[in-house]
Amino acid sequence: MKRHFDQELESLKTTLIKMGSVAEEAVALAIRALLERDGELARSVAEGDQRINSLEIEIDNAIIDLLALRQPVAVDLRFILAAQKINNDLERIGDHAVNIAECAERISVHKPLKPFIDIPSMAEVAMGMLKNALDSFVRRDTELARAVIQKDDVLDEKNKSIIRELLTYMAESPSLISYSLECISVSKNLERVGDLATNIAEDTIYVAQAKLVKHHAAEIS
Amino acid sequence: MKRHFDQELESLKTTLIKMGSVAEEAVALAIRALLERDGELARSVAEGDQRINSLEIEIDNAIIDLLALRQPVAVDLRFILAAQKINNDLERIGDHAVNIAECAERISVHKPLKPFIDIPSMAEVAMGMLKNALDSFVRRDTELARAVIQKDDVLDEKNKSIIRELLTYMAESPSLISYSLECISVSKNLERVGDLATNIAEDTIYVAQAKLVKHHAAEIS
Repeated sequence: MKRHFDQELESLKTTLIKMGSVAEEAVALAIRALLERDGELARSVAEGDQRINSLEIEIDNAIIDLLALRQPVAVDLRFILAAQKINNDLERIGDHAVNIAECAERISVHKPLKPFIDIPSMAEVAMGMLKNALDSFVRRDTELARAVIQKDDVLDEKNKSIIRELLTYMAESPSLISYSLECISVSKNLERVGDLATNIAEDTIYVAQAKLVKHHAAEIS
Repeated sequence: MKRHFDQELESLKTTLIKMGSVAEEAVALAIRALLERDGELARSVAEGDQRINSLEIEIDNAIIDLLALRQPVAVDLRFILAAQKINNDLERIGDHAVNIAECAERISVHKPLKPFIDIPSMAEVAMGMLKNALDSFVRRDTELARAVIQKDDVLDEKNKSIIRELLTYMAESPSLISYSLECISVSKNLERVGDLATNIAEDTIYVAQAKLVKHHAAEIS
């Protein structure tokens, strides 16, 4: 019974990791579509989002079954509740990737007007945060999780500076308004990806700490 | 034992309803601050958000205790899982209220430039959706929940038409760019409030359907 339960937990973790890499890839594709002005690639992101949505339902159902049939407690319960939150966060990251891809598609039909300012570097930070958040969850690495959380301020600062720069563009040349609005939207979506990566890092710490509490309780019992 | 459990479920529901009205009030206040250009009122929304955040933690802890100590199954488990999702949705609605209030605060220091176009009417639709979603959850009224879900298209349409109109403003008079960007942000935040109200309505149906399934099972057993 216990062995089956462990296998079910392991399988939940594996599905979550799979969903994490699909979400990561969606963001990377959306950014590549933007930078390379590739409308077709942009459209493929929205199609790929179906996969994230089915994985979300699969994980939701696995969690209901685990709670109903195994009635877990302590660290296992915390892991399952964290998995539910991360499931939700990854689904939202998928939505942000679609939003970015939609901006990319609209921009791709216009002739290049301006470079993408600091967006490539911002994307790199956001994608790095997401990758590290998922790695920290897989390895239960709280130090890496804390590094992700600290990085969020850098991302917020980049977002603000990009928006300031785009506002100047818009004021100087009204013909750049639509283009600049799309870039502002991309920047805000990347900032939200960073927030969600931060949530995942926080959940990693929550699970790890529950483990510590459990170990401590075992010591004193 | 069973009676205690029912009381705990009832108490979870009560706290959730309280959080719902605080979130509803936060959105209403933010919109009033915007329309009346009242910077002080706008700042009070961010302060009130603390209350939403403490209620979120209170509900999260109640859910962990219920799952760990009572090990609920069937409709009770579904109710608790829906409560966790609604808890998350309400917390995000609180964040959107704060975003709107921040726009309101920045706009309040400028002299009135333009009316708020269709934003008051959009706010009315979004707040109506939120109110009805919470009512449908309290009364387990799936018909009302379905009406909320249908209303979401109206809100999306309003959002698009507001953004189109603001783009025209910006193109015609660059001095309106900052103002228009704030209004676009308000409009997008209201659209997200509608999405989250739709989530709550969907969860209401999910809980109610589980109840139906349960009743059906009782009939055939």
